[in-house]
Amino acid sequence: MDVLIVLGSASDADRGREALATLQELGVDAQMIVASAHRSPDRLKRVVEESDAKVFIAMAGMSAALPGAIASLTTRPVVGVPLSGKLNFDSLLSVVQMPPGIPVAAVSLDGSKNAALLAAAILGLSDRKLEGRLRDYREKMAQQVARDSERVGG
Amino acid sequence: MDVLIVLGSASDADRGREALATLQELGVDAQMIVASAHRSPDRLKRVVEESDAKVFIAMAGMSAALPGAIASLTTRPVVGVPLSGKLNFDSLLSVVQMPPGIPVAAVSLDGSKNAALLAAAILGLSDRKLEGRLRDYREKMAQQVARDSERVGG
Amino acid sequence: MDVLIVLGSASDADRGREALATLQELGVDAQMIVASAHRSPDRLKRVVEESDAKVFIAMAGMSAALPGAIASLTTRPVVGVPLSGKLNFDSLLSVVQMPPGIPVAAVSLDGSKNAALLAAAILGLSDRKLEGRLRDYREKMAQQVARDSERVGG
Amino acid sequence: MDVLIVLGSASDADRGREALATLQELGVDAQMIVASAHRSPDRLKRVVEESDAKVFIAMAGMSAALPGAIASLTTRPVVGVPLSGKLNFDSLLSVVQMPPGIPVAAVSLDGSKNAALLAAAILGLSDRKLEGRLRDYREKMAQQVARDSERVGG
Amino acid sequence: MDVLIVLGSASDADRGREALATLQELGVDAQMIVASAHRSPDRLKRVVEESDAKVFIAMAGMSAALPGAIASLTTRPVVGVPLSGKLNFDSLLSVVQMPPGIPVAAVSLDGSKNAALLAAAILGLSDRKLEGRLRDYREKMAQQVARDSERVGG
Amino acid sequence: MDVLIVLGSASDADRGREALATLQELGVDAQMIVASAHRSPDRLKRVVEESDAKVFIAMAGMSAALPGAIASLTTRPVVGVPLSGKLNFDSLLSVVQMPPGIPVAAVSLDGSKNAALLAAAILGLSDRKLEGRLRDYREKMAQQVARDSERVGG
Amino acid sequence: MDVLIVLGSASDADRGREALATLQELGVDAQMIVASAHRSPDRLKRVVEESDAKVFIAMAGMSAALPGAIASLTTRPVVGVPLSGKLNFDSLLSVVQMPPGIPVAAVSLDGSKNAALLAAAILGLSDRKLEGRLRDYREKMAQQVARDSERVGG
Amino acid sequence: MDVLIVLGSASDADRGREALATLQELGVDAQMIVASAHRSPDRLKRVVEESDAKVFIAMAGMSAALPGAIASLTTRPVVGVPLSGKLNFDSLLSVVQMPPGIPVAAVSLDGSKNAALLAAAILGLSDRKLEGRLRDYREKMAQQVARDSERVGG
Repeated sequence: MDVLIVLGSASDADRGREALATLQELGVDAQMIVASAHRSPDRLKRVVEESDAKVFIAMAGMSAALPGAIASLTTRPVVGVPLSGKLNFDSLLSVVQMPPGIPVAAVSLDGSKNAALLAAAILGLSDRKLEGRLRDYREKMAQQVARDSERVGG
Repeated sequence: MDVLIVLGSASDADRGREALATLQELGVDAQMIVASAHRSPDRLKRVVEESDAKVFIAMAGMSAALPGAIASLTTRPVVGVPLSGKLNFDSLLSVVQMPPGIPVAAVSLDGSKNAALLAAAILGLSDRKLEGRLRDYREKMAQQVARDSERVGG
Repeated sequence: MDVLIVLGSASDADRGREALATLQELGVDAQMIVASAHRSPDRLKRVVEESDAKVFIAMAGMSAALPGAIASLTTRPVVGVPLSGKLNFDSLLSVVQMPPGIPVAAVSLDGSKNAALLAAAILGLSDRKLEGRLRDYREKMAQQVARDSERVGG
Repeated sequence: MDVLIVLGSASDADRGREALATLQELGVDAQMIVASAHRSPDRLKRVVEESDAKVFIAMAGMSAALPGAIASLTTRPVVGVPLSGKLNFDSLLSVVQMPPGIPVAAVSLDGSKNAALLAAAILGLSDRKLEGRLRDYREKMAQQVARDSERVGG
Repeated sequence: MDVLIVLGSASDADRGREALATLQELGVDAQMIVASAHRSPDRLKRVVEESDAKVFIAMAGMSAALPGAIASLTTRPVVGVPLSGKLNFDSLLSVVQMPPGIPVAAVSLDGSKNAALLAAAILGLSDRKLEGRLRDYREKMAQQVARDSERVGG
Repeated sequence: MDVLIVLGSASDADRGREALATLQELGVDAQMIVASAHRSPDRLKRVVEESDAKVFIAMAGMSAALPGAIASLTTRPVVGVPLSGKLNFDSLLSVVQMPPGIPVAAVSLDGSKNAALLAAAILGLSDRKLEGRLRDYREKMAQQVARDSERVGG
Repeated sequence: MDVLIVLGSASDADRGREALATLQELGVDAQMIVASAHRSPDRLKRVVEESDAKVFIAMAGMSAALPGAIASLTTRPVVGVPLSGKLNFDSLLSVVQMPPGIPVAAVSLDGSKNAALLAAAILGLSDRKLEGRLRDYREKMAQQVARDSERVGG
Repeated sequence: MDVLIVLGSASDADRGREALATLQELGVDAQMIVASAHRSPDRLKRVVEESDAKVFIAMAGMSAALPGAIASLTTRPVVGVPLSGKLNFDSLLSVVQMPPGIPVAAVSLDGSKNAALLAAAILGLSDRKLEGRLRDYREKMAQQVARDSERVGG
């Protein structure tokens, strides 16, 4: 498997599916599980250590320890997605402000799609076909902007 | 041992010693170690599981995962002290905004003394002498306020 | 009685009942009252001083003085729950940023359940049965995470 | 006495003296004491209830409960001065975000001078001479602005 | 007239009426107008200079210059009410962070009722009957808290 | 053409139309297009370099790079409108905190109307008729305030 | 005169001189005065109404009402510079969050240089020589970046 | 070359060298240049398009557009380092809050070392020796924590 998406809670499944859909659109092999850093630390440790995923995507809200907890268990790249809630700044800062030594690649609040695209960009470094599909994806976005512009009047 | 103070980094030792001094002043048996949730998760797990401490005090900065990581490993009370840094809100929110199910007792930014007093208050529930010393400590603070007032002119 | 839940306003009753339900699920004896630090300071003083509660849980919004006011009247542990409103940071900071000398154990915004679990963890130090129930509660949460994972596809 | 300045801590005495100096400059009778809402609630209650001050100025940092605590004990006007610290937003929000029913007149962070001027404006409503001195004070400020302008080049 | 309520925009009329209702309940003579610091500065100047109000209450949102603009035109007390919007911190900081020399008495976000109570407290200094009504108002609030407590179960 | 409104995304079209309507009301010639700094940087460069607009209005949300990207491509004035979203402070700070050397004229969050009025004020410096229409617009606003005041009771 | 720089306080003179120096470097005729929106509103009104400046640059800290106050007195473009202090967000939000109808062109915190460049860009629309000097200024910045790159090792 | 470090300004060179030193310690081939998104957009475009770097590290302060601007020009992974300044939240939010479609891997404020470790983790996916060195680096950190613990008293 290429990417393992880890959700801190089953209630985050919709955000996880957004990442899954983008990865599938780019032909990246991915899977989604729930494993909490706080409520099931043993399970999380086992899952990360047994996984053959090249890149981890971790999503969590509030004091979002999940991405950092995964990063503490592996040297492979971990992409962290802070999830929105009552404060928003709690998950954002918990994900991005990792102390020196254990990096997490933070994306925007609820940024599932960008997490998937970042994982694909990482995998694309050693997969020319995937890199090509990423370029096509970009090209389509640019064309969409041009079409949008005509539609709104430009 | 009654209280185990866990620092996320040796650079936080001064804050830890403030808590230690307050605990000693109150006659509470305490010890201080360094164990990082991110850089040494295995050591942290071993230390917490082997400890006979009744209350844990955990201090960490930035994305301060330490108090929550300890709380995920024990059902005993964990007091979390967010440490100040460039943003301050990162450690504060990481400590206080724990998700439902795994509580941490957060005190103020760099609030080492209050962490010690809170731990003492918890232990005082089953230690009448300690509870008495806490009351004396309070009484002295109140008297100090009165003396301060005279000094500044009241 | 073991735990006294003090609400700053009757409009916070739903949050209070969440804490009450969790305490009852864990077999902890608890009661809930309304007593405002600002609108009825005399009543608050009387209630706290006459109470035989071992742990206080105080919930309030805006400039949430209630947990600190209770902490100023007792040396027993006080758990503070900041309640959400228009700013959120007002109650959160008012509860967690207690000045040195008078500790409050702050939990997350609207964190009623964690307040109850923290109170139970404190009481569990001198009540082996309660400590056992807390461990069971944890175990069930971990099992629920595993079941959730299967459900979302892991 | 017209104005009682209450400091939450003796370490705030310099800020208190700024208010005192402005009040003296305006010929307002004032006094300064230390009385903590958290560390000496009984003393605070006694002091406020025994005071014949017409206006209270209360200064405190962190979770600045002092202005609100005084306001809960009197129906006379209370001016609150949030004092700066590590977060600043804690004292500011604790002072200004009073719940409905118990008003505090908040001024800016460390705004001792404005607290004094506000107290004088309130007292000036029933003291024509004081009102006149306030107008003179204003006039002098406006003249100073004109002189400053010439000095910097305008 | 005793109190002039100045709204920055007609869309704030509901907040103004809350203050008006509280003032009327306390028997304080008050009136409400619209006058923008930004859109009608001349009208604002004329209105303030011609008014015989003893206390001004000013309400505005966003970069809420209105309370400060009124305070720059009079030495009588000005109470500022920051109104909520997309950011909330904009109006709050614009009202409370007045520079030295020109005080505004800030109350909480949308704190119309407290603005009215603060104005009444100020007027009560030279009106014994009003001061008595304010004490009754307080007493009723305290009794209401006791009744609320019984209702929720205390 | 006088003003080119550039939207970062077609989903911002309503905000763009608000600016367009205000410009048309003032008789200013304007057009609206979509061109993303991130998704179509080449198109953006071409559009800005080929445009004969005197003033650019750029609207974007989140990490709102669009106004700055346009400003990096032209020395003509660029007005930046931060658009609201989950955090609000992200777009606001991204637009206003431009580094030294490349200025952007930031207006308020979702401040489409003010962006249009600012562009008109700039164009009015060399167009006396437009300046006159701006003055009329102001005059009407002031009259509206007076009418609003009568309506709410002043 | 082309640009009038208005300082809220003489203590901001250094920031004003930065803008003045940049304007002089670009050959723009400018002058600097002090005029406070709060402490000398009459003087401010007179100065703005009598000025023949085409663009105003206003600098102020805390509740920075000055740029908006000037904008309320003229339809010519006003550039607002929020000045740093204890909170920073107070002046930033006071300047940028202008209500609909009265635009201010906000630049970054302490952004004197960008205020000058923005004023020059506005004046450059009807002054081809100035526009040429602005382009040269840009070109030199770009060359400096290339030289800097070689120096640090690129 | 494996990693290209791009600084928004020569004044950020120290932060860049921290990343360079960590990369060299891990045996990763890296280079450092200065190229501003705002002051030299053409140079930035040329540099990114001509570079054979597998991973980009971009560092910038204030409205930190640099990481996003690079990401808009390549599908290879871009690591963004927000640099501290007067507000801190400006660069942090500008880097992490990228809109959907163009991902940036954000690390903490001034997080140069983590940026280097993240780049190494990405490159380690297709370089077993580098992955081994990363594991050794982790191991050494964990050992250091244990030594630190003994030193402070654990």
